[in-house]
Amino acid sequence: MSQSRILGDWGTTRLRLWLIQNGSVVDSRAGPGIGHLGGTPREALEAAIAPWIADNPAARIVLCGMVGARNGLHEVPYVACPLDAVRWRGGAADLVVDGLPVRIAAGAAWRHEDARVDVMRGEETQIFGAMRLDPPLARGRNIVLLPGTHSKWVTLDAGCLTEIRTFLTGEVFALLQGSSLLAAGPERHAGAASDGFSSGLARGRDTNGLLGALFETRTAQLCDGKGADWAHEFLSGLLLGSELTEVDRSGHLPIEVTIIGGGDLARRYARALSARNVKARLLDGDACARAGLDLLDVDG
Amino acid sequence: MSQSRILGDWGTTRLRLWLIQNGSVVDSRAGPGIGHLGGTPREALEAAIAPWIADNPAARIVLCGMVGARNGLHEVPYVACPLDAVRWRGGAADLVVDGLPVRIAAGAAWRHEDARVDVMRGEETQIFGAMRLDPPLARGRNIVLLPGTHSKWVTLDAGCLTEIRTFLTGEVFALLQGSSLLAAGPERHAGAASDGFSSGLARGRDTNGLLGALFETRTAQLCDGKGADWAHEFLSGLLLGSELTEVDRSGHLPIEVTIIGGGDLARRYARALSARNVKARLLDGDACARAGLDLLDVDG
Repeated sequence: MSQSRILGDWGTTRLRLWLIQNGSVVDSRAGPGIGHLGGTPREALEAAIAPWIADNPAARIVLCGMVGARNGLHEVPYVACPLDAVRWRGGAADLVVDGLPVRIAAGAAWRHEDARVDVMRGEETQIFGAMRLDPPLARGRNIVLLPGTHSKWVTLDAGCLTEIRTFLTGEVFALLQGSSLLAAGPERHAGAASDGFSSGLARGRDTNGLLGALFETRTAQLCDGKGADWAHEFLSGLLLGSELTEVDRSGHLPIEVTIIGGGDLARRYARALSARNVKARLLDGDACARAGLDLLDVDG
Repeated sequence: MSQSRILGDWGTTRLRLWLIQNGSVVDSRAGPGIGHLGGTPREALEAAIAPWIADNPAARIVLCGMVGARNGLHEVPYVACPLDAVRWRGGAADLVVDGLPVRIAAGAAWRHEDARVDVMRGEETQIFGAMRLDPPLARGRNIVLLPGTHSKWVTLDAGCLTEIRTFLTGEVFALLQGSSLLAAGPERHAGAASDGFSSGLARGRDTNGLLGALFETRTAQLCDGKGADWAHEFLSGLLLGSELTEVDRSGHLPIEVTIIGGGDLARRYARALSARNVKARLLDGDACARAGLDLLDVDG
């Protein structure tokens, strides 16, 4: 039997682990994120892999994400953009947990010309994996978008990560669920949800800014008979549309974007981009993470 | 003894009541807002005024704010802008509570040319009061700003309320207190807070948008040694600065603004306006509310 490997993407919100044998995923597990642990990250990792270790006592483990942050398993310094795969791999940290070798990916940092810094942990692994799965992405200039609680827009130049831009869209949406804006309106209408998302996208495009546009979520219910379902979708569209407006204002909305992700949020971004005549192609986020983790392990 | 009057500003967050005799405030009380009641608004009002009624059995009561909303004591329809004092007073509703006459102010609504609606309840009373306390405000064109959970920018033309613009700045700030952005940084520095507010104001002015700028609150702690106190102030400055940028983009940032309010938030807006070379003058919010409520009662 060839040596087994355990690959993992361990973010703030959740842990995803894959057991790899002969190049194939033979099992997978999920667990709590670095921000939601009862005990230490080391205890959580040992518990998560225990069912696999009995049969795979010599497994190598390769992890990316917030596991490498200050409050993670082991802090791995960010490596600076412009960043190619060789420098990124060189930034990884090796340690031993429960007698097993563990490699943790470095995150990436980009300092703007104006001295601001932007960072990511985990997404860089997905991006390097995406370039393996889709080699044209490593040629010329490309923009990739990684939806999430914090969405990341990353510029690639000839296989190098050159710019990172983070948007808090998902976190602001989640927080506004608890706000005064979404109090139930008078009634619900068939088709309201879809119309709400489209209306929100349009408002996010033509507005002078988000702070002044948000209140329409409420007044449409108070004065124009919209329901809470419409308001929920309007808010989602308004936030995604506003994010695209910000990207556009900074001159970084291209004619084609590669979305690395999946599920409802990735589809919402694809729809928002399509409404701006931007072509969106989708790569599976988990497959990209595994391809990136595999790259990190190649010399292991 | 002349007839006593009870004036009250009853918003979502809090109730402020004043007992007026011979034109002077002789007592005041505070209580929970319409959004924070245990029982009905009627029960809450009866309990709040009970200590005064024994000695003032024939008092008249005049209220403004969310007390006139759907979930308040009695729903009073909004009156539409452009709105002068005569039409506003005509929109008030009269009812009887516990044998006492109660008058409730109408809120104001403005429908933009593009069909969006903006509304307020309570601020219109402060504005009509401000024009009594400061008659030049009722001449020509003026912009008034009412800071709060939802800040309101209102255009006055010859004493008429003509435009209302609501910004969710305060509510977004409160929600972001619970976000990942403000996790404590490595240490705190003397003067960090003041520097943080200024830096945030500057970023709110030059940014392409709020969603992309928010993350700097976190990265400045992760990568540049800023503390949680700096981050808190940076976030406040970024949000206020972003609001002013939105007002400016819509062409409504004038050379002078009258702020109706008080306390720390009003001072922050004054500082933010000053950084844009906008002259800010301050009128006390409670005094304006009383003057507006008094106007509503004049024909009572």
